[in-house]
Amino acid sequence: MLTVFGSVALDTTRTPFETKERIMGGAATFASMSASFFTPVSLIGVIGNDFPSSYYKLLENRLNIEGLVLNSNKKTFFYDSSFDYDLSHRTTNVTELNVIEDFDPIVPEGYVDSKFLYLANNDPDQNIKIIDQFKNPQLIVCDTIEYWIENKKKTVIEMMEKTHGVVINDQEARLLCNTSNLIKCGKQLLSYGPKFAIIKKGEHGVIFFVDDAIIPIPGYPLDSVIDPTGAGDSFAGGFMGYLVANKKGEILNDLTLIKESILMGSVMGTFAIESFGTDKLFEITKLDIMNRYDNYKKMLAI
Amino acid sequence: MLTVFGSVALDTTRTPFETKERIMGGAATFASMSASFFTPVSLIGVIGNDFPSSYYKLLENRLNIEGLVLNSNKKTFFYDSSFDYDLSHRTTNVTELNVIEDFDPIVPEGYVDSKFLYLANNDPDQNIKIIDQFKNPQLIVCDTIEYWIENKKKTVIEMMEKTHGVVINDQEARLLCNTSNLIKCGKQLLSYGPKFAIIKKGEHGVIFFVDDAIIPIPGYPLDSVIDPTGAGDSFAGGFMGYLVANKKGEILNDLTLIKESILMGSVMGTFAIESFGTDKLFEITKLDIMNRYDNYKKMLAI
Repeated sequence: MLTVFGSVALDTTRTPFETKERIMGGAATFASMSASFFTPVSLIGVIGNDFPSSYYKLLENRLNIEGLVLNSNKKTFFYDSSFDYDLSHRTTNVTELNVIEDFDPIVPEGYVDSKFLYLANNDPDQNIKIIDQFKNPQLIVCDTIEYWIENKKKTVIEMMEKTHGVVINDQEARLLCNTSNLIKCGKQLLSYGPKFAIIKKGEHGVIFFVDDAIIPIPGYPLDSVIDPTGAGDSFAGGFMGYLVANKKGEILNDLTLIKESILMGSVMGTFAIESFGTDKLFEITKLDIMNRYDNYKKMLAI
Repeated sequence: MLTVFGSVALDTTRTPFETKERIMGGAATFASMSASFFTPVSLIGVIGNDFPSSYYKLLENRLNIEGLVLNSNKKTFFYDSSFDYDLSHRTTNVTELNVIEDFDPIVPEGYVDSKFLYLANNDPDQNIKIIDQFKNPQLIVCDTIEYWIENKKKTVIEMMEKTHGVVINDQEARLLCNTSNLIKCGKQLLSYGPKFAIIKKGEHGVIFFVDDAIIPIPGYPLDSVIDPTGAGDSFAGGFMGYLVANKKGEILNDLTLIKESILMGSVMGTFAIESFGTDKLFEITKLDIMNRYDNYKKMLAI
């Protein structure tokens, strides 16, 4: 079982072509939905009194949501942003933390034996608190964002020390490691304690670091981008889900499985951005996923 | 034999760490030097009365320079630029066309049977004129730059129609194809007539387009960048040189060879940027190159 802890949000997303208001978003939503194609997923998060019941049902149908808390006194975490003409730069218009602000995450009794844990870009203090509630986790992977690096850099590094793997985007890696060279960033991330690090570069793919090995993996070539929101979270979910579902023996020694999981993460990221919000993740089938994955493997095998 | 036509320059290059004045540069210099590790290279270009004899000797030792014209009435093409703190953005300080301005390139009699032709980012009218002077070229590959796209877009496309392959960087592809999506760009480049297109993405590698196939290839992970000048030209030279040296039968049907040539191009690009100007390309040995190439192949084979 994979446990995912992170934000469940309502997003207003504006592109030059269309605006969608208050659609379902959040790092944990994208990551959980992606992972759920491969393995059972248990969600930890919080929603407010304005969270539509239709969205709730969508989550309930696919995930174990025992750990999804309703705070009926407040509104759901809300994020309003606009993309520029080529969908490559996002500007934040409004961030309302709402229920997130004073959330005290508790791991339900039914989750504490979970062996696999993905911690989205939460407050690193919360992530550390969550880690300590699990009995015997085998693989803990975390992400982080600019906000925490700028405000709690020391705690971000402490959190990474408690994980087995870090998944982080290129800009955030540069900010955290204080160098523009991503290879230097990757080595520095490993020096913080995790066994592996994955630096996400959007359309350009990822670079994977483990021990002395550096493995660059190109992105899946996609010509139809509608809304880039959630690509990185869907990558992380697909990566974790595939890894958990296909593990044989010691995960961290199985470079082939890790690479396949990265490819699957990339595939899930491409689906996420082919529609607004999480729409596509609710439309696609396992067959769609496997077809794209096979196509990707063929491209790279030449 | 590979013929390379393009600029031989004197560059003043300023990074936040060091400035080098009037060092040897130019697209054809980088491309020729890179290619010369794999196959004999004949250069077509022009230099002026200020071109140091020490640089001339370096070229003479490695290349057939029968087609390198000296214009003793003018100075060599000169380019002065500055890189920002993370070496990712370049600002042009001075461009003096000098000898390039009214150069009328003539293919020496000894070159006209050359089967392989690389046309660097020259005036597309000049490139077309050069193509027409070869008797029976089998593989013509060209690059172009922002200046020609902005000033002679129609001629750039006419030039591409006369080639078998286009090598172009991502920003220039976006400008030429008027879309930010590189997959759309690649398809559009093929619609102009060439059999294949390679979009260069700097540290992120390349995307290769041929027929219906799209092959993304990640960049070689490098943590020591001194001067990014010449990376793309060295890529093109390494690509062409390796392709010509290792061809068996119809090049354009041999995807494995093309991919290997792309990897070799990337390797040559990484060497170029590990020192100022062309310095590293005169220091390294074939063994250095093959070691890095093997290492790269191993990374991608996992």
